Amino acid sequence: MSGITALLFDLFLVFLAAKVAAELFERIHQPPVIGELLAGVLIGPFALGLIGRPDAGLVEVFHGDATAPQEAIDLVYHLVAELGIVVLLFFVGLETRLGDILRVGGRAGVVAVLGVVIPFVLGYGLMGPILGHPTVESIFVGAAMVATSVGITARVLRDLGVIASTEARIILGAAVIDDIFAMVNLAAVAGLATTGSISLLGIGIIAGQALLFTAFVALVGRGAVRRYGLRLEHLKMDGAPLAVSLLVMLGLAALSAWIGLAAIIGAFLAGMVFAEAREHFELEHQTLPIYQFLVPFFFVRTGAQVDWRLFLDGGIMGVALAVTVLALAGKVVGCGLGVLGLGRRSAAIIGVGMAPRGEVGLIVASLGLSLGAIPTQIFSVVVIMSILTALVVPPVLRVLYAGHPETEVSAEDTESPAGKLPDM
Amino acid sequence: MSGITALLFDLFLVFLAAKVAAELFERIHQPPVIGELLAGVLIGPFALGLIGRPDAGLVEVFHGDATAPQEAIDLVYHLVAELGIVVLLFFVGLETRLGDILRVGGRAGVVAVLGVVIPFVLGYGLMGPILGHPTVESIFVGAAMVATSVGITARVLRDLGVIASTEARIILGAAVIDDIFAMVNLAAVAGLATTGSISLLGIGIIAGQALLFTAFVALVGRGAVRRYGLRLEHLKMDGAPLAVSLLVMLGLAALSAWIGLAAIIGAFLAGMVFAEAREHFELEHQTLPIYQFLVPFFFVRTGAQVDWRLFLDGGIMGVALAVTVLALAGKVVGCGLGVLGLGRRSAAIIGVGMAPRGEVGLIVASLGLSLGAIPTQIFSVVVIMSILTALVVPPVLRVLYAGHPETEVSAEDTESPAGKLPDM
Repeated sequence: MSGITALLFDLFLVFLAAKVAAELFERIHQPPVIGELLAGVLIGPFALGLIGRPDAGLVEVFHGDATAPQEAIDLVYHLVAELGIVVLLFFVGLETRLGDILRVGGRAGVVAVLGVVIPFVLGYGLMGPILGHPTVESIFVGAAMVATSVGITARVLRDLGVIASTEARIILGAAVIDDIFAMVNLAAVAGLATTGSISLLGIGIIAGQALLFTAFVALVGRGAVRRYGLRLEHLKMDGAPLAVSLLVMLGLAALSAWIGLAAIIGAFLAGMVFAEAREHFELEHQTLPIYQFLVPFFFVRTGAQVDWRLFLDGGIMGVALAVTVLALAGKVVGCGLGVLGLGRRSAAIIGVGMAPRGEVGLIVASLGLSLGAIPTQIFSVVVIMSILTALVVPPVLRVLYAGHPETEVSAEDTESPAGKLPDM
Repeated sequence: MSGITALLFDLFLVFLAAKVAAELFERIHQPPVIGELLAGVLIGPFALGLIGRPDAGLVEVFHGDATAPQEAIDLVYHLVAELGIVVLLFFVGLETRLGDILRVGGRAGVVAVLGVVIPFVLGYGLMGPILGHPTVESIFVGAAMVATSVGITARVLRDLGVIASTEARIILGAAVIDDIFAMVNLAAVAGLATTGSISLLGIGIIAGQALLFTAFVALVGRGAVRRYGLRLEHLKMDGAPLAVSLLVMLGLAALSAWIGLAAIIGAFLAGMVFAEAREHFELEHQTLPIYQFLVPFFFVRTGAQVDWRLFLDGGIMGVALAVTVLALAGKVVGCGLGVLGLGRRSAAIIGVGMAPRGEVGLIVASLGLSLGAIPTQIFSVVVIMSILTALVVPPVLRVLYAGHPETEVSAEDTESPAGKLPDM
């Protein structure tokens, strides 16, 4: 089998596993995204090994080299998965106007700040003062507990049809701010590990750049789409409005990754900018099929990266469970405190929605590992924490929204095609 | 820049180049697909080198290895491009019912057979008897001139809004049969080059398998969709009909590549099978955005693979031009002869539509090169022939259809969204 044929088979298997799992989980009234994650664990290289391993054809392409084909296949999966999560956040952006975010901006800011400070303090406190690990190691664990990975929450809120609720908007706004903190945080620990100290000036510059980028894109982009958006109809190419919006999505995703933010932040901003023209061009209707094709690859790949054998090591699991509980509590308490005025249920939704950790935490931990600041066991602790926070959040959000399916959705948005295909 | 960020930037550049070129070519009334191909040439590694080169971040992933990152990046591009062309042929399949193909089946069969035999004879005749090359070399050139690559024609016919015309149906039916011949042809020359002889029994078995696969998928698949298709509504997952049809698309593409046919034949068959349920589920409307996102990557990548410096070698270009003229004449005369009863214009459209060569011809030539059956110069001749047949066909088809925009489109299909986005 040639390399490309094997990859097509792999993509087929991933899509098959995702759809079978989504169907099963819908039938047992569980979040389909958890089904997709678990399907990934099952077919991934650490369990059945059905996907993610280079076959003979691919090894041949690399002239029999042992590791390069594996890295190449990882790169292919990573890119397809990245396109999936970029499209997901672009779609969520399309359902979110900048005005909606600015209206909850103050609250989102408080949520983001407390949701960064409290998990860091809890993580640092557990590892240093309580468990007696070295200071740098404790700082790395605290830092790895900071950044929210909003992809899973966005998916669950969309599946539940509540992406336009006040809580969802606060979560999305806070996630953008949180990501700026995450970047600052990453720069800080990288500096700490390499030079032994933290340069406040350097960090201030990074934070300023990120803020400027976000504000510039959001405000100027919105203005441009408002003023010139309708002119997209005058372009001669087929499907110009969709093409231009996808182009901006790819460009802002790459740009925001390049300046150090997550690619999904750029994609979200791109979607938010084009939200100004969404009804006119039916951008949500048109993006939904791309979403349905590409997004499952992200969640199945994420599952496939889980090495379930980590969960069998009692020593690691003890620390990991403690860190996970603090990671959840840190966001629920920190973020929840910031919005207590909205009532306890909303505070809980926002706290839980901000709880999943993901790539940035893993990047912090990898950095610590590669610089010798943390040992392998602590790296595994962070990995387990990321997995568990991702797995716990969807069912809890579902319970929190149960019985209140539409209460918080503002009237103007209920006609938008949130979560269902038209005419089916 | 990390490897994945660099790839996102590359995808952005590819999409940008594709859309700018498509817009420009629409404005000068030329086929947008040619714009995309030329954009690929321009930004590709042989000209500006904006895409397709691994950056420092990616080289780091491969621990400084020199060639592996290039092969990995080629694999990533190849897969994204392959998804594009698979979606294109799936979409074309959705616009084609099996009944439409069977109605023109006899004619399509004659077109395919003559379109295989005459180019082979012309190519062999030029190289052997006329230019005096060795027999095996001449057989390889003839064999490389056989297989039609229907992707470009399908794209042009769709852009022109005539994918439902009788000519388009004959071309699509003939392309499926042609691909079975191409596979047999490939097996034959591979056998010839390695063993020095051709095993008629082995080739008969391969041809039988391919025929059985195609007939089985088309007939059983159509029956299954007709009988059970509407039950897809009872699935609980979001967007089940689209998801299941995309799943079948990926599965049949991989399967048909695995048995030795082109992946796009499986994708076309998948589309044709779901054409039975297309109105009910609006599958064309839903697939169109995926098409618009992914298809440009195929054509830009195809352009990026063109080494324009080949065109500067006078000696090679002389033979290449002669081979190209015969490649065009072979299909125009061969395929045209088979449908003379439809009138000269239809015969010309079908002949020209079958003329683009592509991957299979290049595979035959690569095989010949790697087995020492042909020298590098002859390989370059085949490469130039593939490029020129691909570039010549779109404008010629456009001229042949000019002034007859809708004459041949059957009435029942004129409501289908052939080529335009809804409500824009």
